[in-house]
Amino acid sequence: MKPISTSGDLSRRVLLNTLAALPTLLVPLSLISSSAYAQTDPLPSWNDGPAKTSITRFVARVTAQGEPDYVAPAERIAVFDNDGTLWSEQPMYVQLAFILDRVKALAPQNPSWKTKQPFKAVLDGDMRALAASGEQGLMQLIATTHGGMTSDEFAKIATDWLATARHPRFKRPYTELVYQPMLELLAYLRASGFKTFIASGGGVEFMRPWTERVYGIPPEQILGSSIKTKFEMRDGRPSIVRLQQINFIDDKAGKPIGINQQIGRRPIAAFGNSDGDLEMLQWTTMSGGVRFGLIVQHTDAEREFAYDRQAHFGKLDKALDAAAVNKWTVVDMKRDWKKVFPFQE
Amino acid sequence: MKPISTSGDLSRRVLLNTLAALPTLLVPLSLISSSAYAQTDPLPSWNDGPAKTSITRFVARVTAQGEPDYVAPAERIAVFDNDGTLWSEQPMYVQLAFILDRVKALAPQNPSWKTKQPFKAVLDGDMRALAASGEQGLMQLIATTHGGMTSDEFAKIATDWLATARHPRFKRPYTELVYQPMLELLAYLRASGFKTFIASGGGVEFMRPWTERVYGIPPEQILGSSIKTKFEMRDGRPSIVRLQQINFIDDKAGKPIGINQQIGRRPIAAFGNSDGDLEMLQWTTMSGGVRFGLIVQHTDAEREFAYDRQAHFGKLDKALDAAAVNKWTVVDMKRDWKKVFPFQE
Repeated sequence: MKPISTSGDLSRRVLLNTLAALPTLLVPLSLISSSAYAQTDPLPSWNDGPAKTSITRFVARVTAQGEPDYVAPAERIAVFDNDGTLWSEQPMYVQLAFILDRVKALAPQNPSWKTKQPFKAVLDGDMRALAASGEQGLMQLIATTHGGMTSDEFAKIATDWLATARHPRFKRPYTELVYQPMLELLAYLRASGFKTFIASGGGVEFMRPWTERVYGIPPEQILGSSIKTKFEMRDGRPSIVRLQQINFIDDKAGKPIGINQQIGRRPIAAFGNSDGDLEMLQWTTMSGGVRFGLIVQHTDAEREFAYDRQAHFGKLDKALDAAAVNKWTVVDMKRDWKKVFPFQE
Repeated sequence: MKPISTSGDLSRRVLLNTLAALPTLLVPLSLISSSAYAQTDPLPSWNDGPAKTSITRFVARVTAQGEPDYVAPAERIAVFDNDGTLWSEQPMYVQLAFILDRVKALAPQNPSWKTKQPFKAVLDGDMRALAASGEQGLMQLIATTHGGMTSDEFAKIATDWLATARHPRFKRPYTELVYQPMLELLAYLRASGFKTFIASGGGVEFMRPWTERVYGIPPEQILGSSIKTKFEMRDGRPSIVRLQQINFIDDKAGKPIGINQQIGRRPIAAFGNSDGDLEMLQWTTMSGGVRFGLIVQHTDAEREFAYDRQAHFGKLDKALDAAAVNKWTVVDMKRDWKKVFPFQE
């Protein structure tokens, strides 16, 4: 909330202070005068329009006590995809950039990689050969770079990499390439009694070291893909050791499965940007009550990237068709967002 | 907190009201006078003694701001075993009673079970033959009774069963066979800024329908064993279908693995009662900081059951030895608890 101007007259200040003191969930935005509204707008980086209105209307409906669409706070579960929904996924998934850098960092200890695919492709920067290695090649790279250390060690590796790696176009740490309007949306939902979760195809232990600081979402509310682990005593101390074997892929149909497994409640709002989020959006919204589905469509090549049906990363095709059928909100980044990244003016 | 007596003089009432208004985490119990202490005792069903003192001292240490052992609220993760730690597990695990009843309920639709093990053993009430079917037999019973329906359908089956099933000795619903001192402990930890989780060998979807009502722990803070599921559209509606295949066993070394997977933080306090909790207690307490481990030892045959090293369910042997080595608190139910169940005087 922005500071209240001291130039207003007393009664207006009293009114504003009173409104500010009420829990957000008890203040239907429509009841606030337009001047007060401008001051308390929870989504200042969103342009007025159908996308923003659909969000605030949904929140007002499910938080209005005594009304038929009211949802108790405990049931206000909101799930967010991460790549392309909360932070940028172009020109490639951040975690893929991490994998490629890790292969390069580990290459001196693994001289055989110079002649062995898919490692050779990574070391040569030959993206065509890497693509040719297919899903099996990618899984091999994930297993090699993500397994064979303890969970604590992996958290440090991921944290150290994120501290120094820079986005190739924006020349900033990846954790700055988060969408300002989505940060506001997360905070707005939490202020309205929602519990916010991430359900990402990305690795759960790749996200947890930074998601609380960047998104305000604690580790226990992060869902993602994972590799198998084992518990063992090492030098008399208990350790969780990461194995070189995939445990769970939290993408597509894996998202509702992971949500059911870890959250154990059906969300009432889901936010995504690609076909990987289709089943999560279906599971969330097709359940009878007042539900909310939203898709971020990347339409802004100037401020970020423009891609959808033909994209290599974050392909949005079937889910875009489903959005029209299911009345999910489609955010046009160029039209609906005043700014994209926090560092942009 | 008990209501404050109106017979006290004004200054005492003011003091008590003031103390009551402070968050519990800011009130080291040692600073409260003994008369006020009696009135604000957060653990009234615990007898004074080393077990109770170890709990309140630990909570005071990690919640004292500015002190070296202070732990920020976000890191105050407490994990509880369920069977034998929060509710009774004798004469058999509640979920096993559920399985046996389900086999009987489904038998008319499965006439071949009359001659087929392990089903025949269940229908004949032949526990020796059932035991002879071993782990494989049990897994077959679990798959048959827990798979083949949607998650919503299973939640209803479990809920309906719990509403009518009665404990063979106490003749009460199983959800009344919860330990009053542990309910107080859960509430005390939450009032002290802890987030309480269950990490049980029992089925996660068997617990979630009732744990919020009974323990105040929401579904997303329940960890347990699970079976594989798949997502599918049934008649145009999204469903989570439970398959007849085990996904994860949240017991022994599975407990720290599940905790790392779902919570993503290392707990600072763990509560168990059997060898199945050993690794969870090790993972929680052997990490350097001020940590708390507690084992409930079942010593009270009169009010509940007495069992430990030789038990079929809830065997406490290695973990009891480890408790001495690691200075975990061992609760002697007979000595340390004023009452066991809420319904007992």
